[in-house]
Formats: sequence, structure tokens, C-alpha cells
Amino acid sequence: MMPVITLLTDFGTADGYVAEMKGVLATRAPGVQLVDASHAIPPQDVELARLTLARYWRRFPPGTIHLVVVDPGVGSDRRAIAVRCDDRLLVGPDNGVLSPALLLPGVEAVELPVPAGSSATFHGRDVFAPAAARLALGEPLELLGARAVDCVLRRTPEAVRLDDGTVQGEVIAVDRFGNLITNLVTGRQATVEIGAHRLPLRRSYTDADADGLVALAGSSGLIEIALRDGDAARLLGLGRGARVLLRVRSAG
Amino acid sequence: MMPVITLLTDFGTADGYVAEMKGVLATRAPGVQLVDASHAIPPQDVELARLTLARYWRRFPPGTIHLVVVDPGVGSDRRAIAVRCDDRLLVGPDNGVLSPALLLPGVEAVELPVPAGSSATFHGRDVFAPAAARLALGEPLELLGARAVDCVLRRTPEAVRLDDGTVQGEVIAVDRFGNLITNLVTGRQATVEIGAHRLPLRRSYTDADADGLVALAGSSGLIEIALRDGDAARLLGLGRGARVLLRVRSAG
Amino acid sequence: MMPVITLLTDFGTADGYVAEMKGVLATRAPGVQLVDASHAIPPQDVELARLTLARYWRRFPPGTIHLVVVDPGVGSDRRAIAVRCDDRLLVGPDNGVLSPALLLPGVEAVELPVPAGSSATFHGRDVFAPAAARLALGEPLELLGARAVDCVLRRTPEAVRLDDGTVQGEVIAVDRFGNLITNLVTGRQATVEIGAHRLPLRRSYTDADADGLVALAGSSGLIEIALRDGDAARLLGLGRGARVLLRVRSAG
Repeated sequence: MMPVITLLTDFGTADGYVAEMKGVLATRAPGVQLVDASHAIPPQDVELARLTLARYWRRFPPGTIHLVVVDPGVGSDRRAIAVRCDDRLLVGPDNGVLSPALLLPGVEAVELPVPAGSSATFHGRDVFAPAAARLALGEPLELLGARAVDCVLRRTPEAVRLDDGTVQGEVIAVDRFGNLITNLVTGRQATVEIGAHRLPLRRSYTDADADGLVALAGSSGLIEIALRDGDAARLLGLGRGARVLLRVRSAG
Repeated sequence: MMPVITLLTDFGTADGYVAEMKGVLATRAPGVQLVDASHAIPPQDVELARLTLARYWRRFPPGTIHLVVVDPGVGSDRRAIAVRCDDRLLVGPDNGVLSPALLLPGVEAVELPVPAGSSATFHGRDVFAPAAARLALGEPLELLGARAVDCVLRRTPEAVRLDDGTVQGEVIAVDRFGNLITNLVTGRQATVEIGAHRLPLRRSYTDADADGLVALAGSSGLIEIALRDGDAARLLGLGRGARVLLRVRSAG
Repeated sequence: MMPVITLLTDFGTADGYVAEMKGVLATRAPGVQLVDASHAIPPQDVELARLTLARYWRRFPPGTIHLVVVDPGVGSDRRAIAVRCDDRLLVGPDNGVLSPALLLPGVEAVELPVPAGSSATFHGRDVFAPAAARLALGEPLELLGARAVDCVLRRTPEAVRLDDGTVQGEVIAVDRFGNLITNLVTGRQATVEIGAHRLPLRRSYTDADADGLVALAGSSGLIEIALRDGDAARLLGLGRGARVLLRVRSAG
């Protein structure tokens, strides 16, 4: 059975760039299953693409190939890479977007050569999709290029423990529902402070307080602030980078 | 041959939630065909999701599994259900979104247990996708849970016949083209009144009057008001809930 | 192996029209691979759909069927056609959207009859998808309808060489990144003039001048004007139809 190739880009679909990539994949790896992850990453938002990829890449079965093209540096000297980690394969620019795999132990990476005649503006079609197709056909990673070391890494900013024991974090993403996703994790009873709001940690969106706001551990384990049936980011006027405090709940 | 699983959500794609679900499906039901219905349902718009599902679920072949996750009540005591009707299978929250199947004779429904360790905010990944995968592998509906009765039903509001013989309906949806879709049906010559406009029923969008407006029976049999090469909802400033009258056409 | 059917529409996905078409395809051509090209073409924008189709249709393997439904004239006397060219098949309205294939030598086209009972507002579901399914099952084009001649053709406007040797072109599309794509091509050193800006032709987006603007040959060979990490169309306040001059670079 042919493996799955997933696609994650900031291309939108209307201009046909994604369709060109799919055509290359369908031509070079006949019978491969193409699965859209997303093409709605905001233009050049490597950071969101990284967070999104982190959510899904290991949910797919071993052998899956994840093609990621959010590539503001296309045509510069940034490298093109292919990566193997935990039996999944990833292909994309060496700009940190593949960090969810690159940061794990046992990862292997190769640098993809740019074929003669490639467009300097569209490596997704001319470099990354052909490499993904070769991997889908079973070609070993090592045949695609020379070993790449010192790949660019991006990390989620770490929360900081303050002197008084509270943990200071920040909003790292806002999802489609307006949920403010933070870099805070907790397994304990605690209170989350954001803007002027103090929110006890709850279990589900439907546990919101009277004002509709609720803090809880989201589906990837990170604490998020949501508005019941509404958009917390819009209500609070906050977005990425906003400061959030986590305080172990006191008796008062 | 593996069946098709369709996906309908209000998740958008950029945040990776849909990709997580697809990963679960691809892992648990290898070789299954994933078909996107839509991920552009407005957040928490159970009503539009219901209408959209109604359009397509029986267009797919017997054996198809329709996964529907528009689920504002996730984590509350609303039930998770799987439904079999007319040889199709549907999986989603018990909030009325699956009514197009639930309202038909011969429907069977089971309540899906929530597996230990499931996120309280993402049953799409932890409850619904795993259930859909089991159905795709041929597991009988009855093995997924205990029979569910009294499922939540949502119905399109019914048009009302007034004393003077006209029928009063309303706009139930506005589509991407700005077409105002009503709950009125007709097989006869009639005039549609909306706002200050009286529009004779025509056959196609290209039969518009001089002002560009046209009323006709749309592709699901419901009367809609359209603007030739334009957006009727924007022109008229009307949307869901707007009153529409259907009058058998008089000689005058 | 079943062929691929790609889909290009201006339907969006939320209303379920695309899902209805996919259901028809999955029912009538079981096992066919459905690949979304785009459903985000702006409503009724036949011109953009034509340009988008031009990018991808020959990237797919021989035998691929391209279903294109951007169809403002549905229900009028515009014809429905199916086309074979360069071993690919295309199905859609005869409004010029299929010109990328129709303009090539050796193209063959047939007129698709409208089956009894077809909706006058949704030939995508009732005419085009059924025809695409028949082609996917291997039915010869000639069996789908009578030969069609004089199909409607749309062409990209041609650039004009002025008396002083400069070439005057125009912006023909703006992509998701705000790149202004023109009808100018060049293999030589030259300067591009747009608005008050004079931009030497560069190789990649990362070769932008200090102000961030850059002109280069895009991935389809057409000259485009981009803004490094930004939106050139917004910055310049320009869009489709804007005048662009290409001047062979002088010593000064």
C-alpha cells in the first residue's frame, strides 16, 4: 500500500500552487494518497506552521511523509532538507518549521540538492514535492542528499518560574475559535491570570464562569483561555505574546 | 475496497485539529479514503452544519462514513453518537447536527463511550475519529455502544400558510454566492416577495429581471433569491431569518 | 488503478455543493481518487480559474480528469463540454475556463447533453460530475456527446512592444502573497516599471532592494512584482489591469 503524503503550506489554494505540487506528487508517485493538512497558514508564518505540524505529525502512521512548505527564504541560501524521525518522514525548508521532529532524539536529516532548472521562487514544486515522491516510492532518505547537521531549530518560548512561585508564560497561538493557547502546562489546581481576569482552571469549555471565560488544559496539554460560544481573543483584545500567569490556587 | 470517510467540521484547517483527526483515521483505518466535506462551517454553527450535511450525506455510496464535528458542547454531558441510516454511517455529537439521518425511518443510533484519557475539549480526535475508523474497518455499529434513544433533533422551520393563501417562510441560509435560501418549496407558478421586491419564479440565475434579482427553485428544491453575477444578501441587507412570502401568481 | 479527478470551483466548501459533487463522483466511480485543486476561486471569476487551471492541469499524470465548475451561465444556453488534450481530460462549462487545453493543437471536445431532471442551477452535480465519473471509468470521450466546435476561448491579454522598444504589459493576477503577476516574460536583463517604481529583474524574493520590492520571473515564467515578507499589491495599491513596463536595462 502506498503511504500517505500530507501537505502543509501557506499558499492558499486559489492560485494553483498547491495543485501544481499535487500534480507533481501524483505523477511521480502514482497511487499515493494526498491528504491536506492545511493551506491556510498565514503567509510566511513559520511559527504557526511549526506549532500546527507539532500537533499532527505523529498522529499519522509510520511511513507517512509530511510535506511542509512555508518558505519565506525560498531562493536564498537556506537549505532544503528531508528528515526521518520516529518512522515518519518530513520534507521542507531548513528554517525551523520541521523542529518538532528535528528536536527529537534519533532524528536524521539530509540536505536536498536543488535540481537544475528549478524555479528560484517555488521549491515546493521543484524540490520538495519531487523529494517527497521519491520517499513515497520507498527510496531511502540517505539517497536523497548528504547528511545535514546543525539544522535550524525553533522552540516554543519557555515559561518562567518567578520568585513568588507563580509561572509566567505567554500566548503562543490563537486558534480559529479565538482560544488563546499558552505555553503553560499544569497538572494541578491553579488559577490563570490574563489581563485583568483571574480564571480557575476548569475541565471543559462548558465549565465557563458567568462571564463566559474559561481556562483549561487544551487537547495538546497546554493551558488555553476560551470564551464559551465566543472568541476570547477578540473579547480580551489579546493575541500572540500576551503575558499569562499561572498561580497555584490559594485558599482565598 | 475501503470505504470513504467524509469530514465536516467548524475547525478551519490552520490550527492542525483537522490534521490530527486525519492522522487518527489514517492510523486506525489504513487505506481509508478521506474526503473533506468542509472545515469552513462558522464556529459553533450547528444549524448550518446540519443543512450542509443534509445536502450531501446520501449522495455518497452505501457504506460511507460521515464524520461531523461541530460540537460546542464538547466535554459537557451531551452524548456522542454513531448512527446508521439508509446504509450510510454518521458519527458526531448528539446536538441535532445529525438530524438529516436521525429524522428518517429505520435509523439506528448508539451512544459512544468516551475512552479514558480523552481530552475534554477534542472529542473529534479522541472519540469520533476512533469510532469512524472502527466503522470503516467493518465493525458493526452495535459493537460501538449501547442503543441511543431520544437523540436531539433539529428541524428546518416550517413555512406557514396564511389565511389569504400566501405561504410565509424565511431565509434559512445564505450561501457563498449571497444566494438567500428559503424554506419555501413550490412546483407552481408563483411570486416571491422579499423586502420590497416581488419576484416571479424563474428557472435559472440567467433569467434575472432588469435589476438582476431572481427567485428560483435551487438545486435542493428550495426557493432561493439570487442576484445575477452578484450577492443578493448584501444587496438586500438580509440574512437568516428574513421573512419571505410565496404567492400564487395572480393575473395582475 | 483508478485515475485522479481534480476539482476546481468557486463554491467554497461550507454550503455543501462541493461535497454533493464528491458524493456523485464517489458513487459513480468507486475507488476514484478525488484531489481538491481549489474551491476558493472568487465567485464567478472565470478568468482567475482559467489562470489557475493553466498552472496545474498538465502537472498531473496522463489519464487525469480535471473537473472545473466556475459557471456563472449555468442554466443558460452556454454549452457543457468535455475535452481531451495531451492525454488529460477536462470537464466544465463552455465559457472559456478550459482554454488552457482548448488552445492547444490536437484538442478534441464534445458537448455534454443535460440529463433530464438536472437542476438548472447546479450542473456541477448533475452534468459535469456524472461526465467526469464516466471518463474515470474509462468511457471514451466520444461516447459522452457530439463533437463540439467553436468553443469559447479566453486568452491572457498580450503585452505590446512600444516604439521605444519597451514592452507594455499589465497585472493579470494577484496571488495570496500579494505578488503582482504580469503578462510579461523575459530571459534578459531588464528593468520593470510599475507605478513610480523602477525595479531591476532579480532572481528570488530574497533579492529585494532596500524598500523590499523585487521584480523577478515567477514559477510559471511570468514576471511578477513582490514585496519581501509582505504584500506588494497592498503596498502599491495596485491590482489586476495595472500597467507594467519592461525596459531592457540601460547602462544608466
